[in-house]
Amino acid sequence: MENIYADRVERIRGMMRERNWDAMVITGSDPHCSEYPAERWKQVRWISGFTGEAGDIVITLDHAGLWTDTRYFIQADMQLRGTGIELHKTRVPEQVLIPDWLAQKFEGQRNIVVAVDGLCVGTEFVREILDKTDDNGTDCLIASIPDLLDVLWRDRPEIPCTPIFQVDPGESRQHKIAWLRAFISRQGAAGMLLSALDEIAWLLNVRASDIEYNPLVISYLLVTEDRVRWFVTKGLTDDPETARTFARLEDEGVELCPYADLEIALSGFDAPLCVDPSTLNYHMFNAITAEVVTVASPVPLRKAVKNAKELEGMAKAHLRDGLVMEKFLYWLEKSVEAQRCITEWDAAVKLSQLRADVDGFVGESFQTISAYRESAALPHYVTPDEDAPVLYGEGLYLCDSGGQYEFGTTDITRTVPLGSVTQLEREDYTLVLKCHIDLAMAVWPKGTPGCRLDVLAREPLWKAKRNFGHGTGHGVGWFLGVHEGPHDLRQNLNDVPLMPGMIITDEPGIYREGRHGIRHENVLQVVDAGQNDFGHWLRFEPLTLCHFDTSVLLPELLTEEEIGWLNDYNETVYRTYKDRLTPAISEWLREKTAAI
Amino acid sequence: MENIYADRVERIRGMMRERNWDAMVITGSDPHCSEYPAERWKQVRWISGFTGEAGDIVITLDHAGLWTDTRYFIQADMQLRGTGIELHKTRVPEQVLIPDWLAQKFEGQRNIVVAVDGLCVGTEFVREILDKTDDNGTDCLIASIPDLLDVLWRDRPEIPCTPIFQVDPGESRQHKIAWLRAFISRQGAAGMLLSALDEIAWLLNVRASDIEYNPLVISYLLVTEDRVRWFVTKGLTDDPETARTFARLEDEGVELCPYADLEIALSGFDAPLCVDPSTLNYHMFNAITAEVVTVASPVPLRKAVKNAKELEGMAKAHLRDGLVMEKFLYWLEKSVEAQRCITEWDAAVKLSQLRADVDGFVGESFQTISAYRESAALPHYVTPDEDAPVLYGEGLYLCDSGGQYEFGTTDITRTVPLGSVTQLEREDYTLVLKCHIDLAMAVWPKGTPGCRLDVLAREPLWKAKRNFGHGTGHGVGWFLGVHEGPHDLRQNLNDVPLMPGMIITDEPGIYREGRHGIRHENVLQVVDAGQNDFGHWLRFEPLTLCHFDTSVLLPELLTEEEIGWLNDYNETVYRTYKDRLTPAISEWLREKTAAI
Repeated sequence: MENIYADRVERIRGMMRERNWDAMVITGSDPHCSEYPAERWKQVRWISGFTGEAGDIVITLDHAGLWTDTRYFIQADMQLRGTGIELHKTRVPEQVLIPDWLAQKFEGQRNIVVAVDGLCVGTEFVREILDKTDDNGTDCLIASIPDLLDVLWRDRPEIPCTPIFQVDPGESRQHKIAWLRAFISRQGAAGMLLSALDEIAWLLNVRASDIEYNPLVISYLLVTEDRVRWFVTKGLTDDPETARTFARLEDEGVELCPYADLEIALSGFDAPLCVDPSTLNYHMFNAITAEVVTVASPVPLRKAVKNAKELEGMAKAHLRDGLVMEKFLYWLEKSVEAQRCITEWDAAVKLSQLRADVDGFVGESFQTISAYRESAALPHYVTPDEDAPVLYGEGLYLCDSGGQYEFGTTDITRTVPLGSVTQLEREDYTLVLKCHIDLAMAVWPKGTPGCRLDVLAREPLWKAKRNFGHGTGHGVGWFLGVHEGPHDLRQNLNDVPLMPGMIITDEPGIYREGRHGIRHENVLQVVDAGQNDFGHWLRFEPLTLCHFDTSVLLPELLTEEEIGWLNDYNETVYRTYKDRLTPAISEWLREKTAAI
Repeated sequence: MENIYADRVERIRGMMRERNWDAMVITGSDPHCSEYPAERWKQVRWISGFTGEAGDIVITLDHAGLWTDTRYFIQADMQLRGTGIELHKTRVPEQVLIPDWLAQKFEGQRNIVVAVDGLCVGTEFVREILDKTDDNGTDCLIASIPDLLDVLWRDRPEIPCTPIFQVDPGESRQHKIAWLRAFISRQGAAGMLLSALDEIAWLLNVRASDIEYNPLVISYLLVTEDRVRWFVTKGLTDDPETARTFARLEDEGVELCPYADLEIALSGFDAPLCVDPSTLNYHMFNAITAEVVTVASPVPLRKAVKNAKELEGMAKAHLRDGLVMEKFLYWLEKSVEAQRCITEWDAAVKLSQLRADVDGFVGESFQTISAYRESAALPHYVTPDEDAPVLYGEGLYLCDSGGQYEFGTTDITRTVPLGSVTQLEREDYTLVLKCHIDLAMAVWPKGTPGCRLDVLAREPLWKAKRNFGHGTGHGVGWFLGVHEGPHDLRQNLNDVPLMPGMIITDEPGIYREGRHGIRHENVLQVVDAGQNDFGHWLRFEPLTLCHFDTSVLLPELLTEEEIGWLNDYNETVYRTYKDRLTPAISEWLREKTAAI
């Protein structure tokens, strides 16, 4: 039987031939340049079957390719078999990104037409395609068609529309709007269009669940000197919570407009308008008839620096989440010891049930990675709900999970031995933990960006000529996306400094295909460490509270300082939880956290 | 008596009033954007008396300011007293650079005229002034006058002209020219103007001593498809070496043209010409009538990756230079023990004499910093030739020096105790050495830029909330400038990766005003460390061979791994030199390098 994805690619080519298109570019994003799109916008998956969280497709008449990064090479390799779609690797030194690839492919040709779904492709991305092809002497035209796959994808899901509710993060939406208006005014503009969903949710203090794991509302926001227009689907006004939220917003002067009406509103706007091209889709960008003031939105940085109430909530979320993790790890160890038949999937379900019991829990912050032995060698493994591997008493088990709570968001990875492990597993386990600790212990002068600290979480692995192919840390939202910027800890030279009140993960790892995968992840808060003659100092404070297993450590690979940190951390975990657990788990945790 | 510098500023203002200039910008550079200018171009020193190696001046009718970086704050503060010139600090978070300062100063004004010496100001710098003032609504005009201070500076030195000789670095100038022509052709251009002196010296395999410590020839080079024109002062053709060099170059088809003729040649050139605006002065940039292709010159990167013969020469230079240092440190210790009256200056002279005896020694690679106790708190201290502090049997002595050899360039700093030291000195000494070692031990994957490794040489100090206000490392030329790019190890996010064959210094430090200064510096070579499943690995190999004093170390602040590195290094130094020294010095070195 013909591969359904190969068939879809052929049908797309048929459409391209009819319309004289030379290439079609389909990105894995939605009209809001979201990292995680709702089902409706999983166009890359529909075309190729690839389920990774990052991937873009280019189809020409003689080639079909999927571009994805180091995290998904193994997965893409498996999922693309038989589709005729080739893997193009990104985040590797020899990478050829889509704009460059198109420029090379059509070098020097005239009247090349590249079709895109104008809603699902970012303004900057199209600009790069035009720049690169132009540099290569190619005369390239963009055919920007909203929802251009609709004619082929008959059962495409609708735009999601879930109940909308309000949150109180300690700063009113009026205050935030006033702050944004001051920004707009400094740019000499009359308004700003916000297109990124987490920016809108932050600014309006609203949440929903339009996107799995992400408490967001699919919408646009147009803020001007005297109006705030929210373009949002009003389908659920019979939901009392949504109705209450809408009423409250309208009371406060926020005008509710249909989601589809943004385009009309833009074409009627005639004063300078700020937009951030990094999050605005190409179709809406082109719909603006007024003068465009391109800016980097100021929202991400302000949102990243949490206020006192948000920080208090984050601490509370991590306190409750860590307690769940301890209960989970106890259950896991005892179940495996008792030789019960537990699969990776069962473990994920158990963890999910434990979280569901927590007061304030809303949902998971991403799909739990429950990965045993070689499964964990895929950094972004998706645990199958059927026929998942059974856990038994040897090797390493990795669990990366997190929760959305009404008062904060969590993200934690623990890797634990289920019995005997190899010397290589012990070495890798210890070196990754050494990396984690070295970063967690860092002190640095104010103004330092995360990319300058990243090596602290890599050098112990690098000395052993080992490495991991993903970033070391990402920002975490306050009851928002589990990934947020603008700061990070990775090799890209991002110059945003780490500032007090920022939240970031510390998650070095190691992955050996067919063998094992290890990651140790805490969420850290940036805190002030005082001033002296040499400057103003910052450091990290772990928010995550859950012990690190010491039974398979090779202590000779750690310095006294690192061992000191580990013992202190584990002791803090025990002291925090000992009276909140059953006597049996508490006693177990006391043993687990004994100083080494 | 009136301060002579205050008087000069007033005379400049008189000139500005006559010509209706609102500001004058005088940089510390020469027509080739050199880091170190010859005497003729020390205009900043002439105006202000400031002798630091980096400084620019802005004079308006009501303000005079000197912009310099962290290295020179204390020195500038002292030297500017009474001049009426204010210090503007750079490389600090709150810095306001000259273009921004001018933009703020003249915000919104029309017809502002900023006068510059067009020869001594870079194209990019002028561009920034125009951009920033334009952003601030200022209508700014540049009055670009070559040598505009000549009318005031009556005894200004001539353009230097020293004997020119050839070197053999293992690659012919024909080969280098062919490589450059291939680059020019890839840019779609017909020629390239080289303006940076070290690039020209490298390309033509010529050296001279037009600039103190820098074996360079003041000149421009215009390379086209079929011609190579060298614009150079031919004053010394009666020097046999110079005559031989010129004859050889002409034999090989290099046309020798008068230095002053570049402007005419440029105005007659009518095909696309590559220039690197980062090293081309504004006056010559404006003299180009043909199409300008702005490029980053490919020479710095190629020059930075040393070939086998250059690396062999660098090793030889460091071997000989380290032997000099050991003799010097022995002499120093014995002289102080014997309570001879030795000043900082005497020590520098002694070191200079020891180097002068070395076969192949050409001159010092920069002015020796011989600094005792609080003198060393100035990272770029200039040892006075009269009334220099006397060294006696306590505290720390710092010596930063280097040599130009016919086969390579060196740069080394050692800080040694002359007797008892304080606990704080011991701590600082140990932490700086810990920083040095941690960087020296680094292993990293190919493609990593120096800025990502920089923190390794800072974190041990940062943990103690201490820091140093200069870069950690700079490239070193092959019998060329002791500072060269394009790679470095510093906080600026420079994305040039460290590559095998590159040379870089490792020189963390600490400076406590009025107390002491410490710096430990080796020159390192980047070497291949093999490939495995995780990638292609690189590491450092020290070129510098000279022991680190262990007598004042606090070993409890070092890890076993760091102590192991130190013992190995010191043992290598002893093994290398033991038979090349007198028995007395050899025995002394054996004790100095004993394992701790």
